[in-house]
Amino acid sequence: MGTNDDSGPPVTTLRVGMIGYAFMGQAHSAAWRDVNPVYADLPVSVQLTALCGRSTEMVTAAARQYGWSRAETDWRAVVEAEDIDIVDISTPGDTHAEIAIAALRAGKHVLCEKPMANTVEEAERMAAVAAESPGLVAMVGFTYRRVPAVTFLRHLVQSGRFGRLRHVRAVYLQDWLADADAPWTWRLDKDKAGSGALGDIGAHIVDMAAYVTGQHITRLVADTETFVTERPLSDDDGTGEVTVDDTASFLARLDGGAVATFEASRFATGRKNGLRLELNGSKASAVFELERPNELMFYETDAPAAEQGFRRILVTEKTHPYFDVWWPPGHTIGYQQPFTHQAHDFIRAVIDATPASPDFADGLRVQRVLDAVQRSTETGAWVELPAPEAKGATKRKPRRGVLRRKGK
Amino acid sequence: MGTNDDSGPPVTTLRVGMIGYAFMGQAHSAAWRDVNPVYADLPVSVQLTALCGRSTEMVTAAARQYGWSRAETDWRAVVEAEDIDIVDISTPGDTHAEIAIAALRAGKHVLCEKPMANTVEEAERMAAVAAESPGLVAMVGFTYRRVPAVTFLRHLVQSGRFGRLRHVRAVYLQDWLADADAPWTWRLDKDKAGSGALGDIGAHIVDMAAYVTGQHITRLVADTETFVTERPLSDDDGTGEVTVDDTASFLARLDGGAVATFEASRFATGRKNGLRLELNGSKASAVFELERPNELMFYETDAPAAEQGFRRILVTEKTHPYFDVWWPPGHTIGYQQPFTHQAHDFIRAVIDATPASPDFADGLRVQRVLDAVQRSTETGAWVELPAPEAKGATKRKPRRGVLRRKGK
Amino acid sequence: MGTNDDSGPPVTTLRVGMIGYAFMGQAHSAAWRDVNPVYADLPVSVQLTALCGRSTEMVTAAARQYGWSRAETDWRAVVEAEDIDIVDISTPGDTHAEIAIAALRAGKHVLCEKPMANTVEEAERMAAVAAESPGLVAMVGFTYRRVPAVTFLRHLVQSGRFGRLRHVRAVYLQDWLADADAPWTWRLDKDKAGSGALGDIGAHIVDMAAYVTGQHITRLVADTETFVTERPLSDDDGTGEVTVDDTASFLARLDGGAVATFEASRFATGRKNGLRLELNGSKASAVFELERPNELMFYETDAPAAEQGFRRILVTEKTHPYFDVWWPPGHTIGYQQPFTHQAHDFIRAVIDATPASPDFADGLRVQRVLDAVQRSTETGAWVELPAPEAKGATKRKPRRGVLRRKGK
Amino acid sequence: MGTNDDSGPPVTTLRVGMIGYAFMGQAHSAAWRDVNPVYADLPVSVQLTALCGRSTEMVTAAARQYGWSRAETDWRAVVEAEDIDIVDISTPGDTHAEIAIAALRAGKHVLCEKPMANTVEEAERMAAVAAESPGLVAMVGFTYRRVPAVTFLRHLVQSGRFGRLRHVRAVYLQDWLADADAPWTWRLDKDKAGSGALGDIGAHIVDMAAYVTGQHITRLVADTETFVTERPLSDDDGTGEVTVDDTASFLARLDGGAVATFEASRFATGRKNGLRLELNGSKASAVFELERPNELMFYETDAPAAEQGFRRILVTEKTHPYFDVWWPPGHTIGYQQPFTHQAHDFIRAVIDATPASPDFADGLRVQRVLDAVQRSTETGAWVELPAPEAKGATKRKPRRGVLRRKGK
Repeated sequence: MGTNDDSGPPVTTLRVGMIGYAFMGQAHSAAWRDVNPVYADLPVSVQLTALCGRSTEMVTAAARQYGWSRAETDWRAVVEAEDIDIVDISTPGDTHAEIAIAALRAGKHVLCEKPMANTVEEAERMAAVAAESPGLVAMVGFTYRRVPAVTFLRHLVQSGRFGRLRHVRAVYLQDWLADADAPWTWRLDKDKAGSGALGDIGAHIVDMAAYVTGQHITRLVADTETFVTERPLSDDDGTGEVTVDDTASFLARLDGGAVATFEASRFATGRKNGLRLELNGSKASAVFELERPNELMFYETDAPAAEQGFRRILVTEKTHPYFDVWWPPGHTIGYQQPFTHQAHDFIRAVIDATPASPDFADGLRVQRVLDAVQRSTETGAWVELPAPEAKGATKRKPRRGVLRRKGK
Repeated sequence: MGTNDDSGPPVTTLRVGMIGYAFMGQAHSAAWRDVNPVYADLPVSVQLTALCGRSTEMVTAAARQYGWSRAETDWRAVVEAEDIDIVDISTPGDTHAEIAIAALRAGKHVLCEKPMANTVEEAERMAAVAAESPGLVAMVGFTYRRVPAVTFLRHLVQSGRFGRLRHVRAVYLQDWLADADAPWTWRLDKDKAGSGALGDIGAHIVDMAAYVTGQHITRLVADTETFVTERPLSDDDGTGEVTVDDTASFLARLDGGAVATFEASRFATGRKNGLRLELNGSKASAVFELERPNELMFYETDAPAAEQGFRRILVTEKTHPYFDVWWPPGHTIGYQQPFTHQAHDFIRAVIDATPASPDFADGLRVQRVLDAVQRSTETGAWVELPAPEAKGATKRKPRRGVLRRKGK
Repeated sequence: MGTNDDSGPPVTTLRVGMIGYAFMGQAHSAAWRDVNPVYADLPVSVQLTALCGRSTEMVTAAARQYGWSRAETDWRAVVEAEDIDIVDISTPGDTHAEIAIAALRAGKHVLCEKPMANTVEEAERMAAVAAESPGLVAMVGFTYRRVPAVTFLRHLVQSGRFGRLRHVRAVYLQDWLADADAPWTWRLDKDKAGSGALGDIGAHIVDMAAYVTGQHITRLVADTETFVTERPLSDDDGTGEVTVDDTASFLARLDGGAVATFEASRFATGRKNGLRLELNGSKASAVFELERPNELMFYETDAPAAEQGFRRILVTEKTHPYFDVWWPPGHTIGYQQPFTHQAHDFIRAVIDATPASPDFADGLRVQRVLDAVQRSTETGAWVELPAPEAKGATKRKPRRGVLRRKGK
Repeated sequence: MGTNDDSGPPVTTLRVGMIGYAFMGQAHSAAWRDVNPVYADLPVSVQLTALCGRSTEMVTAAARQYGWSRAETDWRAVVEAEDIDIVDISTPGDTHAEIAIAALRAGKHVLCEKPMANTVEEAERMAAVAAESPGLVAMVGFTYRRVPAVTFLRHLVQSGRFGRLRHVRAVYLQDWLADADAPWTWRLDKDKAGSGALGDIGAHIVDMAAYVTGQHITRLVADTETFVTERPLSDDDGTGEVTVDDTASFLARLDGGAVATFEASRFATGRKNGLRLELNGSKASAVFELERPNELMFYETDAPAAEQGFRRILVTEKTHPYFDVWWPPGHTIGYQQPFTHQAHDFIRAVIDATPASPDFADGLRVQRVLDAVQRSTETGAWVELPAPEAKGATKRKPRRGVLRRKGK
């Protein structure tokens, strides 16, 4: 390509500023660091320019360890910095809207961790600003879309291999709260986290189901529960109140005719990262489990009945999505690699002016589902969801000047 | 013959009359036939006395093949026959109530296939008559309770190994209707079958969850769907209407504090007999899958975190429930053997005057859940269920004369 | 009784005499008892006529429990009894040759448990007498050939689905001797048992590999070990000497060009009945595991690389071998059912005058492999095995008078 | 800080020169690049200083992509360069000895890919030079030792959890040569590669078994085969001769009393990276499979028989080896991460002057096993192996001046 105009020397750098550096700090830093060595196709050099956090000491140490050129403590300074092209938002959900909107308004591309926001209202504002910024990439960090097995599953569905989709069955089960004595964290505070298992991990399966099936939830009825309402503080004698759900489950209908069940829990003893998605169609079925991310179980009705069976596909072939840059067949990837895929696709969206996926409209859609779950829980009734807007198929127009040239 | 001593008046035979002989005919016949050879402890001889069906020709052939002494075509004659002690009801659900009530009133012990009835009203009448017949065994054929892994799981729960139970997750998935061209059968007719996947296979997981956890559903919200509303007749050019559900799913709360999800479907491509039950407690978790009936996955939090894991217990040890009469460890049982366990326990309940499990009160409880699912689907609202009556712990008093003596 | 009409000369009964009644007593008795109820095609009635053991008291109790008409203590009397058509030999290996030869000479059909003999010399004599008795069925009880998944695997190989077979990998692992304090039994006495893990369980995988692949071992090199050479007696203060192998493993070449590894052990902690057979061909691979007898893992190279995977075939379809008489798909069978298949095929061989499989020539071939393993262990060198004699494809000629008529 | 002498400012950099950049280029480059960001404990900065290959164009492109400061074409220049501290050898096996010895003699630390050499003679020379260089780290790249599940398994063995080890069962199965039309590569040339499946993948299981069990092979008998002796050239009309084994298998005895079987094949259709190691001890068993690198199956006899089972441990806890630097439980690692662990441990060995593991003596031991396999195949006889020399437990003495200071 050349992602910029033809005159002059090629664009050479894209400079990232990341806000927040906790759990996601390591994964995102590695992704930005790895994207050039892994992807020979990229005509730009990604730079880890600024890392931002509240504690000078801690963010300085993190920046040094993860390889960021400088540490900052004021996110507004990063968002507005001349030498930042991309803002990566890895903070708790209550700050996403403000930072993302500021970043877009400052002309920066934005990668925002999931869930996109804590409320539908925030998500709507974010999506509106993104829609008004056609030259900017605004992506939500539903990284699991880029686990090769998940991407491949979507490809199989899109190829018509499943016939009519009948069932979607999705759970995301963890167990780190199953012990009633596990300490309180900000993730248990509704003001900070928006919701509990629902937004933290339920959001992933809502997005994954939509991504993989291409179908959206039209209505749902839900149930949530908080098993343990008070927990010890880790740095204090007192206790903290748990104001979010410990588990959420719901029945749903999809706009393509499938029925679906969803469940998210952080009380599922023995399940560490137990995301499991099953599809049943009239012609095929599939199961994906995140604890075995390199595998896809696939069943097809094309063989004689005596020869049918769920086949365990090792999604590690050069012909599988994303795997051409990795290892020989059977040599696995882990949790880190999809972040590198995401970084790559983000960069390609920037330089090719192609749509981001998932974009802020996708993020809003997930937010509406989370909100519907909470409303259904309150009313005990089914909640209808609006039909998603048709996505424009047109190519995104790049904003002039976003890509910089070498030496600039 | 006889296995007890010769002095005095020992009981020597129990004579079975079975109504219906289709799919269940083979399994039940084998169970009555095997129960003496397998169980040396039984002081009675079980006799396959009469098999009853509508077609003289077919029932005669079936009786000959399966080893029944005579064939009958009038179930009332069997129910009232002097030489019948036990009536085994394997007909479609719409006939259960009438036959079972007649049999109990005629002083016969009754084993009734599941679901116990097609309506709550029928089930209530059956349970009432059973309650008025304390000397008679009235059992429902939820045979999976007697898969050793299931019985063992209940034992682990009852021993307190799970701590507080948080989650029950139950699905029963089959795929024999996934093909829209599969022919119509009586199982798709609401008048005959009562309901579809819900009563046929959903009933199993409702009973199993209650049996294993000891908890009962207090409220639920449900969704059902019929994907294919008309199907070709197998013996005709026309089509038959499908008046039952193809799939049913519901969220539920249990009286011990757990949240639960249930799903039954006959459209789950690739799932042949896909019953799966998962429990998550504060101290342990377990998974049982009927397609691997000899295995129980069990996770316990007692080991150091680094050593915890779901362990695959082969439930084939002499110390496992029911396995003392079978093979050395690792030598599996299949679908047939729990019917033999059921026949044994039925006989023991008769001769020891101990309670049947599951009894007609259990069957009624399942029927109420099925009914609640259908009502919730109609209204879109949560439905409350009555608390189960406390079960009398008293020993059943045998009806005089029910056991017959040799030569009588 | 009988299933045919009274006119004309059809055979009506085949009367079995069984020698030995320990572990195999239950399984074989049930098979003979079930074969008529399960198989409507059989035009004869199988009768459990005589059970033979050394202890009058014990054999009488066993005969009563398992449904045999009479108990005997002299095997010669059974073998020569006028009212016995079939002799079923379930005794320890050191007695097989004498009983089987006597039975064949007395004009009886013979089903002989595996391993067929304790020495090659015995096996040769048995095979010779069987060869001289073309009207008699002489079958060896390698029952696992009749696990549907195993039979189906052979069918896939014979259909050419594997291309050139490259690898055979077979283990049979149990753990009941892993505890050094487990008591001594006759199975640890070379005089009684012939060998240890080698003959007891290794014989199964040698036969299964030959059956499934159609290839025979041409040469092998072996290693055996006895980990615990003395064990406590269960009924005494003393100890018993272990004179057999605890484990045996060998490398082998097959006459079709494949390389193979075999291993049998009773010291494999955690493996209860861990028979595992893997085939790798140029076009397909498969894995069978006896602890999951209803499953076959099958991999084929016909799909695009991205879609290949080991598929878990539930071998429970009506179109699978032997399953037409059983349950709907997904309803499993266990350890017992292949004995019923074996009884059926034995009866069919008798009445159709078709070859037995496996016959005594097969049994001899296995015996030669076991012997070669022992010789290789002694010498440390590769041992060559003779090519198997071509099997006659001609139909066995039934011996006149072997089948009896009703009332005779 | 500082692990070197106390005078002066702390050491700050270790500079790596890597010879070869094919498959291993990506993995090793990423490891050297990641080691500082991932490991906060390292008091030195690792620098990717020079990458060396034969083609100027290709090595220049690789150096640019993977982030090496400069490209070289003369390995001797790299080995002797003043600004290189560590030589990483990723070339084919026939060059390892020359490069490694030159590097050690030039005072460089060496990381040498496996197998360490193509012949025992080469390996002996390498080990001898390493032994004469006590201040230098000389490590062999048996990276799988640092898969957390493997390291953890060794820990369990060393803790005595297995009791007496009875069985080791190791296979490494791939299928990239199963297609007879797959093109010829240098890996099929004995002069270049030393051996085929044996050295390429068999070496891994030989090392892993020794590492995990702490036992060494005392004798073995082997079989190898080349199924396809000629293959098409990828860049030519002709064919290339295959002069190495396609598969190798052997029976072995270990010095701690266990019996073992090993098999390596590149013809195992469907197996992509099918390394599988099983241990059976008197008190425990375990299975590790490389295609599921985050899992360890572990069976222990401490529970009541009814509760024993192979437990699937997700080796992703903070308390598992190497996982403290990674993700929350259940968030997996893949093929890349053990290279990072290896780089870390290599650096720590350099700065702490602790022994390398595996060192060149370990590599020599593996080489002797590979050689014994080839000799046994030629002679058909068992081959004895020398007992390993006891390893000195003394701390390695660092070579003065090996660590450089900032700004030097």
